[in-house]
Amino acid sequence: MIKSEEHFLEIIDSLFPAVHAHMLVGRGDDCAVLECPEKMCMSSDLFLEDIHFRTRYFSPEDIGYKALAVNLSDLAAAGASPLGFGLNLIWPGYLEEEFCRRMLASMAALAREFDIALTGGDVSFGSSLGLAVSIWGGSPERHMLRARGNPGDVLFLAGEVGLARCGLVLLEENDPELDRYVQAVNRHLRPEPLIREGLVLSGHTEVKGLMDVSDGLARDLPRFCRPDTGVELDRDLKVHPLLIPFCRDRKMDPLAFALLGGEDYALLGACSSDGFGAVQKCLPACRFLGRITDRPGIYMEGKKLELKGFDHFEQ
Amino acid sequence: MIKSEEHFLEIIDSLFPAVHAHMLVGRGDDCAVLECPEKMCMSSDLFLEDIHFRTRYFSPEDIGYKALAVNLSDLAAAGASPLGFGLNLIWPGYLEEEFCRRMLASMAALAREFDIALTGGDVSFGSSLGLAVSIWGGSPERHMLRARGNPGDVLFLAGEVGLARCGLVLLEENDPELDRYVQAVNRHLRPEPLIREGLVLSGHTEVKGLMDVSDGLARDLPRFCRPDTGVELDRDLKVHPLLIPFCRDRKMDPLAFALLGGEDYALLGACSSDGFGAVQKCLPACRFLGRITDRPGIYMEGKKLELKGFDHFEQ
Repeated sequence: MIKSEEHFLEIIDSLFPAVHAHMLVGRGDDCAVLECPEKMCMSSDLFLEDIHFRTRYFSPEDIGYKALAVNLSDLAAAGASPLGFGLNLIWPGYLEEEFCRRMLASMAALAREFDIALTGGDVSFGSSLGLAVSIWGGSPERHMLRARGNPGDVLFLAGEVGLARCGLVLLEENDPELDRYVQAVNRHLRPEPLIREGLVLSGHTEVKGLMDVSDGLARDLPRFCRPDTGVELDRDLKVHPLLIPFCRDRKMDPLAFALLGGEDYALLGACSSDGFGAVQKCLPACRFLGRITDRPGIYMEGKKLELKGFDHFEQ
Repeated sequence: MIKSEEHFLEIIDSLFPAVHAHMLVGRGDDCAVLECPEKMCMSSDLFLEDIHFRTRYFSPEDIGYKALAVNLSDLAAAGASPLGFGLNLIWPGYLEEEFCRRMLASMAALAREFDIALTGGDVSFGSSLGLAVSIWGGSPERHMLRARGNPGDVLFLAGEVGLARCGLVLLEENDPELDRYVQAVNRHLRPEPLIREGLVLSGHTEVKGLMDVSDGLARDLPRFCRPDTGVELDRDLKVHPLLIPFCRDRKMDPLAFALLGGEDYALLGACSSDGFGAVQKCLPACRFLGRITDRPGIYMEGKKLELKGFDHFEQ
């Protein structure tokens, strides 16, 4: 059992470096003092037990990884270079110290991968496990914003949609066929932050805007487009092959399932029609998704799709 | 009732300005983009229902105020100039929209007072109300750190200790004499962030270190001093007059109670012996607390005081 705040800080200090080029004064004082670039991107995301994850099928390592990964994904969508993060940890007394060590060791490994400093945070008792991460990084010269595409522009996608949701459903159902869907399950438990992709795309002048798809394309596409514009999806749009048997077994439409998605952490981008070839050349992971049109709504072959995405308050 | 994430964002946007000199890109995108000074101070604090506050005696306005105020207090201790903050809000479904509006309006008023921008955050359902604020500001040239004082240096205090704890005890007991102790109750519900004091002190070259006293002097003094040093408290140390009747009624020692304190949000500082007069001249609120000695522990008139402060994990 974890006995005191000091005990926590010991664990954290044993796992996260005390020294980092970005961190002039580290953890342990009232504030960290940070060496900052002129423009910084900043974001934060909650990661709460039984809302965003369950300890039944998330290992401590998965929890530590994903709490940080979903925050990194926001930086990826801004084309930012990760620098540091803060962790607010709500800790239920019944969890063992070992759980905490494993969870934070996994978070530390991901932080190391992107060379970011844990600069501080807070820890407190609570009735269930919760992590609130705040993250920041250097901003690219051009801000990668939403609502910057125009009718005729290409919409593209890096990463998969629907796959994480497929994994979530299987995990929730405790499906006996989990082994067949390892990729989907992993996509839910361990989404990969597309930091490198975000950096490449923000450096590409033809890319007009970028966003991370966390609530599903159906919900996020309208957020990405201006209110006076809409989307015509590629009629040859392919869903991930795993969604085919998954949806067949459940009598669902694979495309609708993919578009509804949720927690995809894919990157959605807009780009001039002429420029898309060059974008794909330097980042083949970017797939053609469709085009921005001057008609609000999401259409495919002229037919309006009525889909509703994921909102924690409506579930 | 609050129905959706959008509903939340509407409330937030109606209360917090969308434009601020510090905020190049505001809320509503994946990241905020911030115009940053070269050195920033960064901190965050959790503020959780039934751990840090109770809705029985905290009004929504008190909650919104204090969640931000305790974070500002960390910046005060760093001598930093507040710039912006992020809010992660855990919202229990049973609370009314009006509660949210009142809570956030009060937070917005405090943000306005210190001219800081709410740059983003996250919101999610949860079983009880919780606020995780991250805050940052421009760092002073000299970092105001702990463990910088030497034996012989003066320790001083701006703000009261013990008073907030007195208020907490009365509120918890639902004491019929609450009206006699309005000042103590207010100190618990609405601690004043000593930002101006922190700025003045960090600009004063004789001030060697600064810290905000949030866990009580008994616990925070050893954190403020180096392990090889200790404290000799002023033998004429005065406690706040309200603590005298409060402790008499409860057969407690007022000095011990003041030193144990908790959530004082006073500023503790160290300063050269010769320089203290000048510090007091420019900030009369700074009171002589004692001196740093070369003997670890907290002493008064040569006698070691055995006191234990406040730790959420030991209560």
